[in-house]
Amino acid sequence: VEKSLRELAEYLGGTLIGDGDLRVSRVNSLDDAVAGEITFLANPKYAAKVATTGASAVVLPPGGASHGRNVIEHPNPYLCFAKLLDLFHVPKQPVLGVMAGAHVGRDVVMGEEVSIYPGAVVGDGVKLGNRVTLHPNVVLYAGVTVGDDTVIHANVTVRERCRVGSRVIIQSGVVIGGDGFGYAPDGEKYYKIPQIGIVILEDDVEIGANTTIDRAALDVTRIGKGTKIDNLVQVAHNCTIGENSILVAQVGIAGSSKLGNHVTLGGQAAVAGHISIGNNVMVAGQSGVHANVADNSIVSGTPAIPHRDWLKMVMTLPRLTEIRRSVQTLERQMKELTGQAGEQEPDYFE
Amino acid sequence: VEKSLRELAEYLGGTLIGDGDLRVSRVNSLDDAVAGEITFLANPKYAAKVATTGASAVVLPPGGASHGRNVIEHPNPYLCFAKLLDLFHVPKQPVLGVMAGAHVGRDVVMGEEVSIYPGAVVGDGVKLGNRVTLHPNVVLYAGVTVGDDTVIHANVTVRERCRVGSRVIIQSGVVIGGDGFGYAPDGEKYYKIPQIGIVILEDDVEIGANTTIDRAALDVTRIGKGTKIDNLVQVAHNCTIGENSILVAQVGIAGSSKLGNHVTLGGQAAVAGHISIGNNVMVAGQSGVHANVADNSIVSGTPAIPHRDWLKMVMTLPRLTEIRRSVQTLERQMKELTGQAGEQEPDYFE
Amino acid sequence: VEKSLRELAEYLGGTLIGDGDLRVSRVNSLDDAVAGEITFLANPKYAAKVATTGASAVVLPPGGASHGRNVIEHPNPYLCFAKLLDLFHVPKQPVLGVMAGAHVGRDVVMGEEVSIYPGAVVGDGVKLGNRVTLHPNVVLYAGVTVGDDTVIHANVTVRERCRVGSRVIIQSGVVIGGDGFGYAPDGEKYYKIPQIGIVILEDDVEIGANTTIDRAALDVTRIGKGTKIDNLVQVAHNCTIGENSILVAQVGIAGSSKLGNHVTLGGQAAVAGHISIGNNVMVAGQSGVHANVADNSIVSGTPAIPHRDWLKMVMTLPRLTEIRRSVQTLERQMKELTGQAGEQEPDYFE
Repeated sequence: VEKSLRELAEYLGGTLIGDGDLRVSRVNSLDDAVAGEITFLANPKYAAKVATTGASAVVLPPGGASHGRNVIEHPNPYLCFAKLLDLFHVPKQPVLGVMAGAHVGRDVVMGEEVSIYPGAVVGDGVKLGNRVTLHPNVVLYAGVTVGDDTVIHANVTVRERCRVGSRVIIQSGVVIGGDGFGYAPDGEKYYKIPQIGIVILEDDVEIGANTTIDRAALDVTRIGKGTKIDNLVQVAHNCTIGENSILVAQVGIAGSSKLGNHVTLGGQAAVAGHISIGNNVMVAGQSGVHANVADNSIVSGTPAIPHRDWLKMVMTLPRLTEIRRSVQTLERQMKELTGQAGEQEPDYFE
Repeated sequence: VEKSLRELAEYLGGTLIGDGDLRVSRVNSLDDAVAGEITFLANPKYAAKVATTGASAVVLPPGGASHGRNVIEHPNPYLCFAKLLDLFHVPKQPVLGVMAGAHVGRDVVMGEEVSIYPGAVVGDGVKLGNRVTLHPNVVLYAGVTVGDDTVIHANVTVRERCRVGSRVIIQSGVVIGGDGFGYAPDGEKYYKIPQIGIVILEDDVEIGANTTIDRAALDVTRIGKGTKIDNLVQVAHNCTIGENSILVAQVGIAGSSKLGNHVTLGGQAAVAGHISIGNNVMVAGQSGVHANVADNSIVSGTPAIPHRDWLKMVMTLPRLTEIRRSVQTLERQMKELTGQAGEQEPDYFE
Repeated sequence: VEKSLRELAEYLGGTLIGDGDLRVSRVNSLDDAVAGEITFLANPKYAAKVATTGASAVVLPPGGASHGRNVIEHPNPYLCFAKLLDLFHVPKQPVLGVMAGAHVGRDVVMGEEVSIYPGAVVGDGVKLGNRVTLHPNVVLYAGVTVGDDTVIHANVTVRERCRVGSRVIIQSGVVIGGDGFGYAPDGEKYYKIPQIGIVILEDDVEIGANTTIDRAALDVTRIGKGTKIDNLVQVAHNCTIGENSILVAQVGIAGSSKLGNHVTLGGQAAVAGHISIGNNVMVAGQSGVHANVADNSIVSGTPAIPHRDWLKMVMTLPRLTEIRRSVQTLERQMKELTGQAGEQEPDYFE
């Protein structure tokens, strides 16, 4: 692909400053770009590199020093970088239809221009939207629905009746709609509670490799529109995750918890069951959330506390042994001063 | 399915109080049930809803106020709910035999009424019990045995010679019998120790999605009868998990550890290698068990300590900075009182 | 297989002391070995068992007391054990070629003596070395390369253009080259940054079941030669892991971090993004590394601190409530002595 700066300015929704007829065919970093490539300034501390980059053009924030370069001004150059990668560097997938070695069940409804690779198994009554791609060995159980332009990578399983939105990306090895973990104790043993609900992945969701999202016991486990989930994350039955939230790798969310919109959970963070987390909350990596969290909070630690308090605490923690020794010294001094042992038992610190 | 209350009382092993000829065809919650449905009271705090529910009948604990309803009395209404879900809401799977697109090796012994979906691969010498279901793309390596009524979901792998009991459920993406993680250090490098043992899943075990249970180095990694394991759990080589235990999602158990019966490990808890955990032990989520744990203990934290001590500790922890400041003040006051610096170096707290 | 001690001494690179014509056909532990078997002494505390073992021969460290046994002396008997397991107990896999039910794309280059099981899907332009084994339902996307003698177990996915070295072992369910987790915030929403880099697994790497290693955004996520990764580990995009390192189960490494050679990360440890960890570093299980770590360090805790400091800290932590009570007592005593309240607010500890 080769594009003129005029075309790129229109594609990006930016303002052209310079030669609109100049043509580029790649995007690259400020350091590595050469003639024929466009670059971008995302971090102001690298502004001086605009003068020295080998690129033919630069995406700058409005008012950024152009150093005489051909420029497209845009308030979000990093977003432009992503869109230029899409344009120049992501090959368009051919439409392959149902390939030999794919298994398609009865009463399947297919949109236009689907691609179904060998080894994919499409259960009875599945509905696929337009331009859906099922990579090799994807398994869709009976009654699954998949929206337009969704890509499901190799070895993914989507269990019966689950609903996958449009423009969803599911990375390899993901399990959508496995049985929730629910048992009725029966004295000695555990009796399995049938999990007859489903999972709904709303539009524009992405799910990372080998992540598991369990079906609800009775109704719906829901991942809100635009939410992005990283690898090896566990979302238990009956959870509701809001819109445009971020769950980093190895996060675990126990059953029936509810997260708001624009929530960010750091890697390996855990949320207990039946917890409510508000909008715009950030949870630090490895934290354990045991209680509800209000909108706009930042929390850390296990159990999670306000991040600011946690920072103070972990700064002091390595001094704990010294603090204890100081207290012992003070107690000895106090005893000498007052001539008595105080209120504690004498071998308190053994 | 439609059943009379008389039939349901017999099915549940409960006591009928009311019209035994009344017929219902669904189970639902106290809030949502309508005529033709049966509901249940599992939590005493909702007892008043028995008077107002739209259900045609209610499962109550013995002596529960019936408010004139048709009632089945049973000591465990929640267990009855699970059994009613099974009866009314879990569709019976048809017997499908070996479907087109399944791959079956040599010398395979099959029970009656098995269902093997497309893409499943059954290795040489595998033995399948009666009514076994292998969903699409399940892979059983050579010499695997599977007991009666076991269900293995899509994209599961069971490695060579492992033994799966009866009435076992394996959720999608699980790996049973992958090589244990064992190497002999050889100066610079690590030399792989062949893992020639197996995994045994005893009867009535359930394994959650994408969980991994490694084969033993020489003998057996064993999951005891009735134990339920959630998603993304790691059980390392040579472990023995007792009967009727619960491992919540993302738990990790290092090599050669031994858990008793009726153990519960909370989500993301970890157990070090060569540890012994007794019967009826509870380990809180995210804890790290570094030492043996006696029967009937409840432990929390990393390293894990008695839960009661941990609770006190985490209540005090956020005050640590204040405690340190108090100690500094006391030291200053003590110095003024005694006219000397005490035993610590003066810039101790820098 | 049956071998003379002379042949075994040569195979192991050890020194024969005793009857070189004696033949053995198995390896076993000191306790369990019988006639016709060879055993080994890896742990000096079991040296007395050499006298009583039923084995026909023993591998001893140089100068170990032979108690009149036939002996092979070698400085690393445990390594010899691993090699004897290989020799006697690991069945040689037959060469199977491309089996019926495997799907091979266009322009695939294959070495000699490959084995490709049913359900494996080999994308266009893939290059396979000699003696490669692809177990059932392995999926290699287009342009993947695989070195000689590499074994890929069932249900593994390797995404487009990733490069797998020689003598690599990939356990079942692994995902190599899934998209890195990168988005450009666009006000409300997140815009996916295309991940156009690859993953390189160098020679002699082993990857544990259901582990995920993401492709780089632009260039390479690299796992160094000889490194062994356990189950359910997450390695994010753009990471570089050095040579002969060990990542225990459920470790998570965030984007762009760099680990040296001979690093060991304990189970469930986490490393934040853009961190540099030196050579020969050990990180304790469940730790969280938030800052760079120098060569030869041992660190523990979240955030990770020197292991020695962490040990002292966790020994004192359960006494925190007692320390607080001592401080309160001291403050009361100080107030009595000085007749004033000190500098803190009086209800400080509420």
